[in-house]
Formats: sequence, C-alpha cells, structure tokens
Amino acid sequence: MLKGHQTWLFKSKPVIISSAAVGGPFEGAGSLGDDFDILHEDIWLGQDSFEKAEKKLLEQACEKAIQKAHMKKEDMQFFMSGDLMNQIISSSFTARTLGVPFLGIFGACSSSMQGLALGSFIVDKQGAKHIIVGASSHNAAAEKQFRYPTEYGSQKPPTAQWTVTGAGAAVIAHQGVGPKVTSATIGRVVDMGISDPFNMGAAMAPAAVDTIEAHFRDRKIDPSYYDIIATGDLGKIGHRIAADLLAKHGLNIPSEIFTDCGILIYREDQPVMAGGSGCGCSATVTYGHFLNRMKKGELKRILIVATGALLSPISYQQKESIPCIAHAVSIEM
Amino acid sequence: MLKGHQTWLFKSKPVIISSAAVGGPFEGAGSLGDDFDILHEDIWLGQDSFEKAEKKLLEQACEKAIQKAHMKKEDMQFFMSGDLMNQIISSSFTARTLGVPFLGIFGACSSSMQGLALGSFIVDKQGAKHIIVGASSHNAAAEKQFRYPTEYGSQKPPTAQWTVTGAGAAVIAHQGVGPKVTSATIGRVVDMGISDPFNMGAAMAPAAVDTIEAHFRDRKIDPSYYDIIATGDLGKIGHRIAADLLAKHGLNIPSEIFTDCGILIYREDQPVMAGGSGCGCSATVTYGHFLNRMKKGELKRILIVATGALLSPISYQQKESIPCIAHAVSIEM
Repeated sequence: MLKGHQTWLFKSKPVIISSAAVGGPFEGAGSLGDDFDILHEDIWLGQDSFEKAEKKLLEQACEKAIQKAHMKKEDMQFFMSGDLMNQIISSSFTARTLGVPFLGIFGACSSSMQGLALGSFIVDKQGAKHIIVGASSHNAAAEKQFRYPTEYGSQKPPTAQWTVTGAGAAVIAHQGVGPKVTSATIGRVVDMGISDPFNMGAAMAPAAVDTIEAHFRDRKIDPSYYDIIATGDLGKIGHRIAADLLAKHGLNIPSEIFTDCGILIYREDQPVMAGGSGCGCSATVTYGHFLNRMKKGELKRILIVATGALLSPISYQQKESIPCIAHAVSIEM
Repeated sequence: MLKGHQTWLFKSKPVIISSAAVGGPFEGAGSLGDDFDILHEDIWLGQDSFEKAEKKLLEQACEKAIQKAHMKKEDMQFFMSGDLMNQIISSSFTARTLGVPFLGIFGACSSSMQGLALGSFIVDKQGAKHIIVGASSHNAAAEKQFRYPTEYGSQKPPTAQWTVTGAGAAVIAHQGVGPKVTSATIGRVVDMGISDPFNMGAAMAPAAVDTIEAHFRDRKIDPSYYDIIATGDLGKIGHRIAADLLAKHGLNIPSEIFTDCGILIYREDQPVMAGGSGCGCSATVTYGHFLNRMKKGELKRILIVATGALLSPISYQQKESIPCIAHAVSIEM
C-alpha cells in the first residue's frame, strides 16, 4: 500500500456467500421490512433484559447467515463483531455462543463496515477461508445506556435519531457465489467540535466526507462508478450536510446515487426524528436490503460508508466534543 | 490457513521498530520501574478526570514510540488500539490526537495482543508499511467504572487484582531493526461459569490454556521453543490454575519459562492482592520490559498470551458469568 493511502484493494475479491438481517417491530413496519430474514414483534425477544435481547438479535443474525451458507458454526474460522453496549457485550456473548475465535472491534456505528473491511482483508490475504462478521444495536438498550431510559419519556429535538433494533451478519469466503468485496477505506477520526449527542448526524457528516474523499482519491475513480453510495446513519440532517460539504469540496454525487441507511430504513410517518442510527442500521440495511437488491440485479456496485460517533456518556458529561469516524467498503457483483 | 487453525504465521516477520511504556506512581515503584519510558508521580497526569489522564497515558505512549522510531505521526498508516473504558474513549480520543486512520478494537485486557496480532497481519500482508498499536488502562478510571470509586474505600478479597495505570504502544514496520513478530493465535471465548469479578484470574485461566494449547498444536512446536511464555494478567491465583490445567492436559511448561505480566509488574510488598491487571498490564510489560530484555540479548523468543475478561458491569449485575479470551503473539529476535 502506498504511503498516505488508507484504502485496501482486495485482489482476490472475497465473496459474501450469505448474509442475514434481524429486526424488531419498528424495523418490520419500516420501508425495508421485507428485506429482513427474521422480524420480532416483541422488543424483549422473550429475554429478561434489553441487553440480552440485543445479544439474541446478533446470535440469530449469525446463525441465520451461517445456515444460509449451508455451513456450520465450526466452519467459521473467526468471528469479528462490534456493538454499542459497554464492553461490546452483545458481540462477546455471541462469540461465546458461536465458540469461534473472536476479534472484537469498536467503531460505534461504523463497526459494521470496520468488521467487513478487516474480515475481507483477512480472507483476501488467506488468513482465513471463512469469517463471519456482524454488528448489532437495540433501541431500548442504547437509550438506557447513552441517554435516558425510555420509560422516563424524555423529549428529543428533531435532530435526534432513532437507534435501530437489529443485527446484521455476513459470511465472507475466499471462494463462492455472491457479491464481492472489492475495496475498503479506513477512516480517520474527524472532530469538528460538535458536542450535542442529539445531533450526531451533523457531528458525523464531516467524517463521512473525509472517508468518501479518501476513497475516490486512493482508488482514482469517480462517484459515477457506483450505483449507490450510502452513508451509515447520518439521518436527514447529517446526510444533507455531507452532500453540501462534498459539493463544496468539488465532489458532486448525484442525489439519486447518494443515500443513507438511516433515511432508508424507516417510513416517513414513523416518529424517528432525523432517521435511524446504531450499528444495526447500516448492518441490517447492507446485509439485508442492499445485498438483496444486488442479487436481484438491481445494483451492480455499491459503496457503504458506515459512520460512527466515538463518544461515551462520560466523555459527553466531561464536556468533550464528539470524535467521529467513517469506514467505507465497496461491494460489487 | 488450514481449516480449524487459529494461528497466523507471519512470513515477512513484521518488525517492532520501536515501542514505549508509560506508567503511574505505583508502576514506577514496582519491580519493572526501570523499563518505563515515562513515569508519572501524579495519577491525574495534570488532567481534571481519570478518564482524561488515561487518554494522556496512551497519547504519550504513542508519541514516544513514534519519536523513538524517528518518525512522525503522519508516517503511521493506521492506529489500532483498545482499552477498558466504555466505548474505548481512551483509544478513540488518542486517535483524534494522532489524526491517523483508526481501527478500534476490544478484547478487554487481551486488546494489547489483539492489536499486535492484527497489526502484524496487516503489515505482513502489505496492507500498510507502518502501523502503531497500543493499549491502556488507569486504575482509578477502571475502579470507578467497573467496581466502586476508590474514595468509597471498599474492601477486596485476596483474589482481586490491581488495574495497572499505564499504556504501551509499538510501531510495527515491514522492514527495519528490532524484535520480529512471527505468529499470532486468536483465541476463542471460554466461559467456565465463574461470575465473581473479584476473581478474574481464575475466570481467565481456562481461556489462556485454550489459546496456549491451540498455539502449540497449530505451530507444531514445543513450549521449550520459547525463553518466556507470559500470560497477560492472570495474577498469582489465575496463573497457578493455568499451570495446573496445562499440566493436566499434558503440556508441562517449566516454571522458569512460564510467567505472568500481572505478577512481574509489582513488588511483593505492594498491596496489589493477586497482582496487576488491565490492558496496560501486558502492554507495558511487553512493550517495555520484555522488548528491553530482547534488545539486551537476554531473551530470544517470547510468547505473550494476553488474557481478557469480556464482562461489563451490566452483564455482571444481570447474573451472567464471565466470558474470557486470550490472544497469543510470538516475538523473536
């Protein structure tokens, strides 16, 4: 890799031989309900805590993805996953269930593409034949940990976002049939000084822009190369800011190409403020909706730019601004 | 890589061209005080919170390692780091300071070797020329988050461990002079049902054993291959359990070879109960003490088996047992 570059090109083109998306009731009622493999009516998933419900979402996504690949969990050489819970317990406890060598990652909501990027790198370089990657989030678990328990009924500004209750997983293989992972751009931390956790889309937009610019600079291609360029969870406000910033920097991405998983996942009439967010947002929309569209032949080349706000309640309470990051992965048929 | 294997062999042998260890007052007064590059008398490091003090430790370790390599932070292609703070804020905020593309990881106290393993894989496969890896912990920040604020004066059983206030970092390069990273074994989650967070050494011992056995099985070598095999932070009790379990499984590692960073770091008369722990434990002992001994010619081949307890206060409060993991990395002159 050239000095100053932050993009990996995957020569062997690792294949996503299967993937799965699991969601909650709000996601099932959303715009992409049909793209989920499993939907739950009950946000508790029959568990006695929201944290255990989130683990269940991720376990089910992994089990479903492995089953769709006609494989067994023992066939997976590594499991790479991240989530928003403190100490990524959803991922760690799922790793315990799978019993597969585990690499825990954390990039907040960018964890989905960080996992796909690293997992694809490892498969591309023959560090494994099969890796399963995943990411999850749960609305009520995230509210409780990061903001206020939902039961408090606290109000939110229109810039706030709705954490997706969902998990996505994908099996990456050295050979096989399916969409191929062709490159990945690892993002830098960008912090423009925004400290309002109810306006994360605006905080994350510059990080998305930084990574998108790096991707096109490193790959020496044009946005028109892709059928879709989707940010992870900027929501309506952050996505508009990102589009404006890109245009300002001379990178015009047509609005029919440039979209956001957090905008796509819910219907206009769902009360989600600026849109969806959470690790489960880009994970379910990518591993469900987008890969389904690729398999149907509707999309040939996509770039997913998962965005993450690397704050914690402690850093926020200590008046720190929000460091943000974005990782981009290109998937092609 | 063969099916069922969990060990990467690094053909190009990535070089640790520099490393640095930063510690607090308790670490300076410990057995390995001379092996730290920077020692602080003040656990606050002049900051107004313990969390910010931990970030400072990690920033200093990274800056020192880069300086010792006679390089600039802009020369680093990626920064890979993890820590114990919720949402790994020590690592994320250090990534903001460095401005380098960032890959956040989490394996609790195994994060040190998870970073060295993944970083070495990427450098070995030419995914980067230079990667900086790091890990940190801070005693007071960890106590506050995981147990009780130190000011409460709560008592601890003799099985408890003392979280190291320290950070370690290393610059991994494709070429150069220094100890070489030759292989890495990625661990599985092992959970023997222990749920007592004041006995983490015992909880983690089976995970260390599982990874050590996998390492020797995959590499087809004998423990006598190494001058030192050091677990990360099992402490006195966990280390003794690990030795017993290994012997029971027919893998006898002579006691002069088999040691533990958490035992080595403090003096016998320091009130650390069963020994040191935390991401900063294996990170500072490896990147300070052990690499210094290798450079002096005292050690030729070492295996560091960093152990991690993947619990969170929430998982503990919800009566979950402690899933544990260990990642092993071999370093040779």
